Amino acid sequence: MSVAARARGDASSKRRLRAWIRLLGATRAAEGALREFLRVEHGTTLPRFDVMAALHRRREGVTMSQLSRMLLVSNGNATALIDRLEQDGLVRRMPSPSDRRSILVALTPLGTSRFEALAAEHEAEVARLFAPLSDADLDRLADILRRLARHDPGTAREAVQDAGARAWTRPS
Amino acid sequence: MSVAARARGDASSKRRLRAWIRLLGATRAAEGALREFLRVEHGTTLPRFDVMAALHRRREGVTMSQLSRMLLVSNGNATALIDRLEQDGLVRRMPSPSDRRSILVALTPLGTSRFEALAAEHEAEVARLFAPLSDADLDRLADILRRLARHDPGTAREAVQDAGARAWTRPS
Repeated sequence: MSVAARARGDASSKRRLRAWIRLLGATRAAEGALREFLRVEHGTTLPRFDVMAALHRRREGVTMSQLSRMLLVSNGNATALIDRLEQDGLVRRMPSPSDRRSILVALTPLGTSRFEALAAEHEAEVARLFAPLSDADLDRLADILRRLARHDPGTAREAVQDAGARAWTRPS
Repeated sequence: MSVAARARGDASSKRRLRAWIRLLGATRAAEGALREFLRVEHGTTLPRFDVMAALHRRREGVTMSQLSRMLLVSNGNATALIDRLEQDGLVRRMPSPSDRRSILVALTPLGTSRFEALAAEHEAEVARLFAPLSDADLDRLADILRRLARHDPGTAREAVQDAGARAWTRPS
């Protein structure tokens, strides 16, 4: 490779590295803001919200291993979160109708109504955070992220997370 | 609020929520890909890389609390990572020249050269992941993320992380 070609390659890879660091920083910042919002305004945590969102999407109940795959936020210990939600009356454990040896977890009616109220507040807070972006910005961003995801060796993993992520949307 | 106005507000907040979920998913996927790359190709971890990157940026050494603020990846236990890097001869602990009661951590010369080799590989992998994006895409993405960050209540936090993040760039 010529010196000039290498210099071009270097500049190009540095631009992409800067883009990645900016993406990571922006995601962390928004995640931090939402974490604070849930903690301060609603006395709850992002991992707990994430677990309830996943359960809200699969009302019929999921096994613990299905649940782990659906989570969008790294959760440390999903079992401890479920134990706590069960103590609070928001989640119940039950034998699977199709396989009595396996245990499903699901939201209780109280858990469902609590989550739906919280999801509406969360959605409004996200809208505030993303208010500086126009509809055209959102289209461009979606297009860019879609192309990034298609190329990514982590696509399969993301597809799973996407399924979990849809649970964060407020039921309409 | 009229029914029509509420419906517009709803559609707008749902678009922003979808954008956020897409952003979070893309970041998680890229992070997962880099985590795998570091693990499989280099037998190391993203938190360990992140710690070395922060130390590489502050060659004179940092206290453990400064280090924690510089990290871009949530690290679980920075102390355990530093203990392990010290055992491997990549990091040393020393009393601060300005305050003998406080302890600084810094890369050793071996740690510096190991990190620089790894940072070059990491940069090349990021360039591969971001290859589908043109220079124009990168400009648009930077512009969008900048406007998002400026508005964000988490800006102060991000500024700190940005400083840490620059350490990920390969020394040029």
